[in-house]
Amino acid sequence: MVSAITEEQDGVYVYIHGYHKARLVKMLPPESRVCITATLLDGLALAWSAYASNMNYRCAVLHGEVMDWDETTPDAQAAKTEAARQIVEGVCTGRWDECRQPSKAEMTTTGFLKIKVLSASAKISSGCAGEEKRDLDDAEITSKLWAGVIPTKLMLLDPISSDDNKVPVPQHVKDFIASNNAKPVPWPKE
Amino acid sequence: MVSAITEEQDGVYVYIHGYHKARLVKMLPPESRVCITATLLDGLALAWSAYASNMNYRCAVLHGEVMDWDETTPDAQAAKTEAARQIVEGVCTGRWDECRQPSKAEMTTTGFLKIKVLSASAKISSGCAGEEKRDLDDAEITSKLWAGVIPTKLMLLDPISSDDNKVPVPQHVKDFIASNNAKPVPWPKE
Repeated sequence: MVSAITEEQDGVYVYIHGYHKARLVKMLPPESRVCITATLLDGLALAWSAYASNMNYRCAVLHGEVMDWDETTPDAQAAKTEAARQIVEGVCTGRWDECRQPSKAEMTTTGFLKIKVLSASAKISSGCAGEEKRDLDDAEITSKLWAGVIPTKLMLLDPISSDDNKVPVPQHVKDFIASNNAKPVPWPKE
Repeated sequence: MVSAITEEQDGVYVYIHGYHKARLVKMLPPESRVCITATLLDGLALAWSAYASNMNYRCAVLHGEVMDWDETTPDAQAAKTEAARQIVEGVCTGRWDECRQPSKAEMTTTGFLKIKVLSASAKISSGCAGEEKRDLDDAEITSKLWAGVIPTKLMLLDPISSDDNKVPVPQHVKDFIASNNAKPVPWPKE
């Protein structure tokens, strides 16, 4: 399952999709209230003590309401196609223009949930672990044990072409991999 | 929050910990039934069409029961210390012996949940996306569009020492980073 977030004139929206008969899609008709959570792991913060060690992360909780596409309007199909585009571009920038776009039958068998964000909160943990005062004052510990952060990052590795593929890896895939991997972890600041 | 999985004589257990007054710990007394889910993203499987594209992943769902530590036995403290060791080693192999181990006060303010796994299921998606027959038969598409997988992996980056640190990065941290990053993604097979 893939999601995308967009800022539109009247607010922030999250798009989620799935097979039109999938339980998630069927259980969330328009006006359903939903809660979406996501966490990114940014690092392992290793303190001198096991107790003070922790993890660096960015997490968010969104509360929202499922929108009605209003199928009676001629704009509904265009809006769903735009949702599909946002989702594809959210996964791999540049892919939408380079792939075969969904047919009418494919769009019909896909359920798109457009969720208006009503409230949201985020929590960020970064930097080094806070050491206990007793450890900071203990030369026995500070002269022997290492403390610091091992940053972590979801990296994109070299692409593997499918057995049926007949063309070289395109520039949009190379650019997408390079730009993802060049993004710095949020701490330390550059 | 950190977890570890161990195989013991009478079954498989998952360890979870948190501040002893944290809601998660307080809401899960012994005999509570719990469900634990985890997903690892292994790759982006890009098909010729947006519709057939998907993601590679490994996910698991565990159903289990929270165990009672039986505080009346002299073994309870040793068992909790072993849980702490499993959790620390599960995050960074080799760290337990190199850090200051928990004091009695630190152990008292930490809640350890030991969960006996009663049932589990897993789902793995790997390899390339299954192309639609209409695309396989369409030379217009196969001669122009690329299809394949962009493997993804959570990599450990170079360690950053804390401002208070006084010693060089130790071998156990270097070894841990190297062994994590050397693990192959599960597809394609080596």
